[in-house]
Amino acid sequence: MLNPQLNRDGSLQHLLSIEGLPRTLVTHILDTAAGFAGLVDPRREVKKLPLLRGRSVFNLFFENSTRTRTTFEIAAARLSADVINLNVSVSSTSKGESLLDTIDNLSAMHADIFVVRHSQSGAPYLIAKHLDKVRSSAEHPHIHVINAGDGRHAHPTQGLLDAYTIRHFKKDFTKLRVAIVGDVLHSRVARSDIHALTTLGVPEVRVIGPRTLLPSGIEQMGVSVFTDMAKGLDGVDVIMMLRLQNERMNGALLPSAHEYFKSYGLTAEKLALAAPDAIVMHPGPMNRGVEIESSVADGAQSVILPQVTFGIAVRMAVMSILAAA
Amino acid sequence: MLNPQLNRDGSLQHLLSIEGLPRTLVTHILDTAAGFAGLVDPRREVKKLPLLRGRSVFNLFFENSTRTRTTFEIAAARLSADVINLNVSVSSTSKGESLLDTIDNLSAMHADIFVVRHSQSGAPYLIAKHLDKVRSSAEHPHIHVINAGDGRHAHPTQGLLDAYTIRHFKKDFTKLRVAIVGDVLHSRVARSDIHALTTLGVPEVRVIGPRTLLPSGIEQMGVSVFTDMAKGLDGVDVIMMLRLQNERMNGALLPSAHEYFKSYGLTAEKLALAAPDAIVMHPGPMNRGVEIESSVADGAQSVILPQVTFGIAVRMAVMSILAAA
Amino acid sequence: MLNPQLNRDGSLQHLLSIEGLPRTLVTHILDTAAGFAGLVDPRREVKKLPLLRGRSVFNLFFENSTRTRTTFEIAAARLSADVINLNVSVSSTSKGESLLDTIDNLSAMHADIFVVRHSQSGAPYLIAKHLDKVRSSAEHPHIHVINAGDGRHAHPTQGLLDAYTIRHFKKDFTKLRVAIVGDVLHSRVARSDIHALTTLGVPEVRVIGPRTLLPSGIEQMGVSVFTDMAKGLDGVDVIMMLRLQNERMNGALLPSAHEYFKSYGLTAEKLALAAPDAIVMHPGPMNRGVEIESSVADGAQSVILPQVTFGIAVRMAVMSILAAA
Repeated sequence: MLNPQLNRDGSLQHLLSIEGLPRTLVTHILDTAAGFAGLVDPRREVKKLPLLRGRSVFNLFFENSTRTRTTFEIAAARLSADVINLNVSVSSTSKGESLLDTIDNLSAMHADIFVVRHSQSGAPYLIAKHLDKVRSSAEHPHIHVINAGDGRHAHPTQGLLDAYTIRHFKKDFTKLRVAIVGDVLHSRVARSDIHALTTLGVPEVRVIGPRTLLPSGIEQMGVSVFTDMAKGLDGVDVIMMLRLQNERMNGALLPSAHEYFKSYGLTAEKLALAAPDAIVMHPGPMNRGVEIESSVADGAQSVILPQVTFGIAVRMAVMSILAAA
Repeated sequence: MLNPQLNRDGSLQHLLSIEGLPRTLVTHILDTAAGFAGLVDPRREVKKLPLLRGRSVFNLFFENSTRTRTTFEIAAARLSADVINLNVSVSSTSKGESLLDTIDNLSAMHADIFVVRHSQSGAPYLIAKHLDKVRSSAEHPHIHVINAGDGRHAHPTQGLLDAYTIRHFKKDFTKLRVAIVGDVLHSRVARSDIHALTTLGVPEVRVIGPRTLLPSGIEQMGVSVFTDMAKGLDGVDVIMMLRLQNERMNGALLPSAHEYFKSYGLTAEKLALAAPDAIVMHPGPMNRGVEIESSVADGAQSVILPQVTFGIAVRMAVMSILAAA
Repeated sequence: MLNPQLNRDGSLQHLLSIEGLPRTLVTHILDTAAGFAGLVDPRREVKKLPLLRGRSVFNLFFENSTRTRTTFEIAAARLSADVINLNVSVSSTSKGESLLDTIDNLSAMHADIFVVRHSQSGAPYLIAKHLDKVRSSAEHPHIHVINAGDGRHAHPTQGLLDAYTIRHFKKDFTKLRVAIVGDVLHSRVARSDIHALTTLGVPEVRVIGPRTLLPSGIEQMGVSVFTDMAKGLDGVDVIMMLRLQNERMNGALLPSAHEYFKSYGLTAEKLALAAPDAIVMHPGPMNRGVEIESSVADGAQSVILPQVTFGIAVRMAVMSILAAA
């Protein structure tokens, strides 16, 4: 089966998941992002490129996320695109229009890129598949979909910006030990990170968490599983903390936020078990005192804010590569 | 009485209704739109013109409509205008400020175009009249109002884009039979379509619907009235379906959505009664299975998505003509 | 203590309050605004300058105000900045993220200017102080904060646009008598106006209102206090009316809106007590018939709408001065 994200010539038609992307393509995205990273330096005079001038980027957020929407909005603006924000939950779908009718309509307005966030896994695939069907009718040849997070499934631009951050600080993927800590079960970020890291050749990816928050069979993704934080962190070069959703904290899956912090919260003490130059990452927003101690979040080994900065460059890279396809 | 939409020299000062516009002016709008239609072709490199550069378009939506707002936002962006979206129901009016004080304030910020959507018929007129009074005081000489739908009264850009679509597919208005089907009583779209078609010289405009959803005296608008769908569709060249508002479906005016579909829903079978090359239109959003069968909505005779595409060009035309006035 | 708004060389790093700004700096802002005022003339062809091209202005509105947000949005657009609107109350903070984590994140996206509105006095200071701490770490050297209204504390751009308006109509500050009328106790506008006027050398600033709505000790700000409207208005050159918040009207502080109007509402009769060429100002939105009579609000001495117009130029001036710092 053809990867639905790729054109026949192997170029990127949509970004739906990191799963199945060849390493060369992932590396190409990171290299392109590196070219944009300098551009977002606030000391630079010119922070804008005309690569998407006259193109329309539609932020279709069926699930609200101001933070993620803002990063795409800024990335698109820095490429000179016109950005249309659509909070779709309060829009046509409330008038009983189907998702695909909404998509057809926005396509007919000659959108160039749809950035899609949806609470249901697979929604961006459904949209991309529908667009490609329409596309074969030669009406709308160039509409690209970027998955900005779908259910528990994938959040590929987060996976890419995390990979970018690791490469920036660690240079070489092929000798790293990386730990992903927390609620892996419900995390699209974890899934995208695992795909990115294994694709890029990281030899050892560990997931750490309570048994109830680790999906069964996750070993098949090429990771090793730890329920003991101390053992899992031993000697790792990168620690990627996951956000603990509020709704998990007092539910059936966990005794309490306090207990969770005791076992899996990243403290200075636990951080000392990792390599001395290990970096600490978090996709945000953080629950300080739940999954991470403030002194670690703000400490010398934290690269949490650089992640955000690099995220703009990575999203610019994805958009510019899609627009050139 | 002077038409409040027109300047003394006959040029367009506001677009409030198609009623009363001379045919030459309507044709001029359609011709101007034709010049922009190529621009929205996604294969074209340059999709942006500087005609409204530095101008401010305010989307004043007192009634929510993401779809319509988006089309104006894109049209304005493609003319390089700055667009300000104001969802006015949650704004100053909730602080007890009057509509006209809000308008005066936004005018004082030197808006160039107000795109007004309001649930009350006549609200855009009220605003335009107020602006023209201020204008005569030589303070704010060039603020234009575009009616983006007011109550049951008018939706002139929809009427214009429908006329554009018909001209695109049928070339000549003067030999057409056009049927408008459904809830004419509550439809501003129907009213604007009738004015557009009769102004442009369509010799036969029919309205079709249950007696309870046809306004009494509608014959005076120059249309013929049918309550029988088969008779009404017989031999027509264009079928314009209207959206059935959810709130009508189970009310006193209609037995049920299912009964409505049986009598007035457009099926392949009923479509066969029209001319063989008849086109099918719908302003959206559609209620599939209520006023239109899916196979017809997506079928070869449907021009529903081209309507959306042409809508961008038509709105660009209206804005550029107003801005040049 | 160093004024936290100023850099060591005396240039403006943030605009948090007019209090403590040197007169030369306030005058420089007004002079810069005068250069932009011509630009917003609707008869001018070019209304846009590239001074903030490629810069990102974030409207961080923790308290909703469409009117104020719009003026900043237009001012930024006329300087060619990219504007990101964040209604933060519905955003990350609802996910339990702290204010300063939100700020850190937006900073990491390389914002250039934060326009901050917050219901709590001092919030913009807190943000500016936090940014300056980060700044000293040399990571984000150039993020500026503009206070767009914080609690009862300050609304400096309103104070500046009021000063601009007075200078426009009265030329010389040093011979004026100015009356500020109404709910001074709860008004950040009143506080900023008083600071602006005394800084600019107005020899006589009066506050007029019922004892319950005047803060005790206000005389220490250099104003004289009147509870009698007739005495307070006697011979003044400028009357600045304040908005009476709805929640005050029927509370413990006031008998009723009707009683308030009788004593402190500005009528034509009371206006006649001021100098014959006195101007009438109001920050909007007005409660007609409560703090001001309609005939006065719309009368020949009213400069309420010019205030709005000048507000755009003043905000452009503040942004361009900050961006050049």
